[in-house]
Amino acid sequence: MPRMSPQSRRLSEALAAAAAQVNAELDLLLQAGECPERRVHDAMRYATLDGGKRLRPFLVMQSASLFNVSPSSALRVAAALEMVHCYSLVHDDLPCMDDDDLRRGRPTCHKKFDEATALLAGDGLLTRAFEVLAGEATHCDPAVRCQLVGELAHAAGGQGMVGGQMVDLQAASLDMDVNDITRLQQMKTGRLISYGCEAGAILGKAASSLRLALKNYAREIGLAFQIADDILDVEGDAKQVGKALRKDAEAGKATFVSLLGIDRARAQAKMLADQACRHLEPFGDKADLLRSTALYIVERRT
Amino acid sequence: MPRMSPQSRRLSEALAAAAAQVNAELDLLLQAGECPERRVHDAMRYATLDGGKRLRPFLVMQSASLFNVSPSSALRVAAALEMVHCYSLVHDDLPCMDDDDLRRGRPTCHKKFDEATALLAGDGLLTRAFEVLAGEATHCDPAVRCQLVGELAHAAGGQGMVGGQMVDLQAASLDMDVNDITRLQQMKTGRLISYGCEAGAILGKAASSLRLALKNYAREIGLAFQIADDILDVEGDAKQVGKALRKDAEAGKATFVSLLGIDRARAQAKMLADQACRHLEPFGDKADLLRSTALYIVERRT
Repeated sequence: MPRMSPQSRRLSEALAAAAAQVNAELDLLLQAGECPERRVHDAMRYATLDGGKRLRPFLVMQSASLFNVSPSSALRVAAALEMVHCYSLVHDDLPCMDDDDLRRGRPTCHKKFDEATALLAGDGLLTRAFEVLAGEATHCDPAVRCQLVGELAHAAGGQGMVGGQMVDLQAASLDMDVNDITRLQQMKTGRLISYGCEAGAILGKAASSLRLALKNYAREIGLAFQIADDILDVEGDAKQVGKALRKDAEAGKATFVSLLGIDRARAQAKMLADQACRHLEPFGDKADLLRSTALYIVERRT
Repeated sequence: MPRMSPQSRRLSEALAAAAAQVNAELDLLLQAGECPERRVHDAMRYATLDGGKRLRPFLVMQSASLFNVSPSSALRVAAALEMVHCYSLVHDDLPCMDDDDLRRGRPTCHKKFDEATALLAGDGLLTRAFEVLAGEATHCDPAVRCQLVGELAHAAGGQGMVGGQMVDLQAASLDMDVNDITRLQQMKTGRLISYGCEAGAILGKAASSLRLALKNYAREIGLAFQIADDILDVEGDAKQVGKALRKDAEAGKATFVSLLGIDRARAQAKMLADQACRHLEPFGDKADLLRSTALYIVERRT
């Protein structure tokens, strides 16, 4: 084990504490009693609980803390965002999409259950996320809840994540350059990361300049995250990462690594993380964990 | 052609006029310019435009008219509900679910495009529906919009339509009686129909007794609709109905017809339609089109 810096130790502890809270919240929000439809609830819980770094929820909770938002409001929004992320993984893993058997080191939802159940579990998670955000238990006023719903839907829909997945499916047959890949990744993974960072500003009714600072931070870490993913896809250990690797290369898809080479890709990710940190200047020390997050994103091994 | 009564003629004209408005609204809400993700937008439009009786939107528009709700608000909510209905059809038709090739007399979405595109189109429609409901263009106050989002999500999710689909998938292996089938159908199709009828009351901030009257009306027509569907499945002409028939019997699933026999099923549907009309008494003549709808539902041939 490499020795950890005080910053990474602090981040590591904060991530673990947040993940525990998010898991407990998801457990509560996805309760299901005995009923004939129990199977789909079990699949929704399987796809959501006990796994993942909970990076997006962490971003919600950290950005909310910059604006003195009630932690319970932030936690609920964080859990809803994680449901949307998990739904996207369940559908993405289906045979007609990426056809993956392994996710977070466990059988994917359709392997554990079956395709139809996984399809419905994804649908159920997406739907539940909006129900949670619109609900009074979010403890924020209805105008804020409408904004949370509308912006998450925009980030996740045809002009966001779903649109990005559509382009990704066609990527192997398209001649994509760095700009095309950047746009694709901003849609496919960037929008939800950005939502996570901006959710705190929405909840806190922040000045637009501060929201913009978080949006800019999110743009840089979103891209850095994807470049790091592409590097992990080439250099990583499937067992440690918990999912199948080197699928992009096998499918003939362009990636940041295939287009830039691994050294330039690594340098680019580092530069983006540094830029991301600079966008946080207006927040002073309060944003230190978000700064550590930017560095963690490019250095992570899973 | 059988001669139409004045009531059915009036309903027929009102349904056609509402369908034209809903189609125009959906066309507007699902606009897409030229972009790399165009394919998923085309699939979303294919699955939504130019088809269907638009019964659920009609229920929204009619129930809204009882409370002097602005027609443009009602139309927008109607279109969002239709998106959720169409998403459910797209996912339901997929090979891992009902594996249907024909819908509304045309190739199903995954036949016209491909499975991955159909999956994403369904996801995109569900997401877009919530974006539309949460948006300011609904022209109602944020608390009402939150309620519209929350209740639609509840009706469509794991304790509603998705839950019903889960039970339906297992139906062939379960020993289901009329009560079980009733519960299943209330979840699978009843909840969205009920949402359509109650949406007008939500938009119009109606007294709870009036909302309850609509909910009771919806419960009866929802069941009548399903019994009529089961009868059509046995007696209907696939070409006229526009989808494959007799799949339930082939799959060994219990239906209202298999449990009650066709004569009792028909009598039951008629009785439910009459009961439905009685729930509309508080609304007087203003609810005449909803009364005709109840009768149309049990007599329809498609």
